[in-house]
Amino acid sequence: MGISKRIMDMKFSEIRKLIPFANEAKEKGIKVYHLNIGQPDVKTPEEFFEAVNNYKGETLKYENSQGMMELIESIVKYYKEINIDFNKEDIYITNGASEGILFALMTICDFGDEIIVPEPYYTNYNNIARLAGVSIKSFMTFREDGFHLRSKEEIVSLIGDNTKAMLITNPGNPTGVVYSKEEIRLLSDIAKEKDLYIIADEVYREFVYDGLEYTSFMHMEDISDRVILIDSMSKRYSACGARIGMMCCKNKEISNEFLKLCQSRLSVSTLDQAGAANLINVNKEYFLKVNKEYEKRRDILYEGLCNIPGVSCEKPSGAFYIIAELPVENSDDFAKWLLTDYNYKNKTVMITPAAGFYATEGLGKNQVRLSYCIKGEDIADAVIILKNGLEEYNKIR
Amino acid sequence: MGISKRIMDMKFSEIRKLIPFANEAKEKGIKVYHLNIGQPDVKTPEEFFEAVNNYKGETLKYENSQGMMELIESIVKYYKEINIDFNKEDIYITNGASEGILFALMTICDFGDEIIVPEPYYTNYNNIARLAGVSIKSFMTFREDGFHLRSKEEIVSLIGDNTKAMLITNPGNPTGVVYSKEEIRLLSDIAKEKDLYIIADEVYREFVYDGLEYTSFMHMEDISDRVILIDSMSKRYSACGARIGMMCCKNKEISNEFLKLCQSRLSVSTLDQAGAANLINVNKEYFLKVNKEYEKRRDILYEGLCNIPGVSCEKPSGAFYIIAELPVENSDDFAKWLLTDYNYKNKTVMITPAAGFYATEGLGKNQVRLSYCIKGEDIADAVIILKNGLEEYNKIR
Repeated sequence: MGISKRIMDMKFSEIRKLIPFANEAKEKGIKVYHLNIGQPDVKTPEEFFEAVNNYKGETLKYENSQGMMELIESIVKYYKEINIDFNKEDIYITNGASEGILFALMTICDFGDEIIVPEPYYTNYNNIARLAGVSIKSFMTFREDGFHLRSKEEIVSLIGDNTKAMLITNPGNPTGVVYSKEEIRLLSDIAKEKDLYIIADEVYREFVYDGLEYTSFMHMEDISDRVILIDSMSKRYSACGARIGMMCCKNKEISNEFLKLCQSRLSVSTLDQAGAANLINVNKEYFLKVNKEYEKRRDILYEGLCNIPGVSCEKPSGAFYIIAELPVENSDDFAKWLLTDYNYKNKTVMITPAAGFYATEGLGKNQVRLSYCIKGEDIADAVIILKNGLEEYNKIR
Repeated sequence: MGISKRIMDMKFSEIRKLIPFANEAKEKGIKVYHLNIGQPDVKTPEEFFEAVNNYKGETLKYENSQGMMELIESIVKYYKEINIDFNKEDIYITNGASEGILFALMTICDFGDEIIVPEPYYTNYNNIARLAGVSIKSFMTFREDGFHLRSKEEIVSLIGDNTKAMLITNPGNPTGVVYSKEEIRLLSDIAKEKDLYIIADEVYREFVYDGLEYTSFMHMEDISDRVILIDSMSKRYSACGARIGMMCCKNKEISNEFLKLCQSRLSVSTLDQAGAANLINVNKEYFLKVNKEYEKRRDILYEGLCNIPGVSCEKPSGAFYIIAELPVENSDDFAKWLLTDYNYKNKTVMITPAAGFYATEGLGKNQVRLSYCIKGEDIADAVIILKNGLEEYNKIR
């Protein structure tokens, strides 16, 4: 017997590891503001629940492995509206975006192959890559640049014979960066020159602020056969519990093979797909309202953080995260302390230490990721608690 | 660019590859009886839909990665009723049993490790094993034995240094075999002697006929730390479209690691879990009724097949499949011909060629897998069509 080496190499979620301490705090009657997770508090559109409740069929049957045709057709329509041209046969429904990324890696990489990812990055990529037996090589981006790209040379220097793809999250998690058209062009040129795929994780596409123009990799027509687009309904429609992701690819050689992976797990939840298929009927006002709300929340959090002595951060343009540098040596210890040893008027804050988002040992130790998925007034209150917490922590440590 | 070797080595589903021909037949107005798939036509219990429709919560949130606690508690209760003792922390909800098997393999095997499986076996195991980078070594079981085990020696002779587990489906798909207590004991002894895990795929547990006693690997107390039990709601409650499987294991070393895999895909569908949690309230009469119905269908199919000249099969005791030997050289060609070139009173039958269930090249070429998931009267009609089809096919080929 024994346990596999690959699973020993995997880590438990950095984002979720403080949960037991948060639960203990709550049991003591302390209110915990969750600035730690990307679980939006916005209501899931009623169209989702309506379609689920109207599901006809007395036997809940397997859907086909590619996905429910009605849902796929609605997705084709959605992309047309943002000038991305996919056909039905280009789209495969997955159990969330995470399965889409796993399947994409398995389709283009063999055990021991490599992919390139900008650092810091979504920690879960590490575990997904390990499942696929793929190594991540990362190039650095910096808080003081707002996590925008620096030099083409550094990226190119990482690419070796076994490099198959770049995995790019845009807008970024945990950084909130939104890459400019020029940056998307630069990465596209590298993909062409070095003959790589781009796995484009664009699940936060709708969360872009300040009237910024959003450029998808699918808008670069000359590389459309290289792009495997990963997308999800979870964030866009505040429906994380419906596990509806997708991978979309115009390269037939790739998309045909996807079907084997989809068949290996038979199908995705029939009811979740029925609900998701009806989301195309959500009024466009919904996005505008949600977008405005998040922009407001970001401003409250950003401005609040700027007013805390010793805290540094750049204003992010997308997603719903901010990376902030705190005046502490070890944000892991501070995040835990906030839950176990501290409260301010019987309230505290849960934050995510950022070291887990860095592949390079020792980086991000004084940084945290803060999400702004809770109400504006709660964010404002949380910032006060954080400010006082920092003062107190630095007195005693 | 390019495509991975591992995905090129994977095959498209044998079970689903005839679907386009069936669709063409239907377009021509021909009625197709589906003896090809394990999609029960029994109604999903109303308790499932009730719980889904009563879901409270305006935002459809991520469930926790292990699974919804209410569902896990209901599963503990279910197992207690069949004398299997699991605690809450032993149970992890998965996206169907297929994800459970993939995660089990990843937890105990590294790339290049091996597992032992009795042949013929559920074809999908091949693709799941390839995803995990694991090789399948198989020992043979035979139609004329009703696919029961032959010798311990042959099984033991396959076990090498890299063998980590035996993967055993009981009741069997595609064979319908139900292993006796002695056979389960024999396999358990091998696991102990050779220090192996047993991945016990028991999703058809409720489908056992003729008053036979069912023995789970979890009833062998001396190996309970070696068993990774894979289970599912799909067949038991005729709810294949709700992707609710589970892996259960009393070995803490294993089950603790499972959580990493569950976290890598965040969670399983919240609504499907809510629905499944309420299935514990389904009246026990439901199983008795369903069981009786399947036993009747099996009898109709088995007796019908026995009356077709040149057809051989054993009466299966479980699941809802029969492997039959037909008087044809190539059942692949015959199955396709039934859909493309034949009809009897404007009706035909879809069957699954069995060669895909064998790992050994050349085996099963004159066999087919027939499922009895459709109404008894339709099965009776399908058998007549099959009989006439065989006569006509053998005149012209």
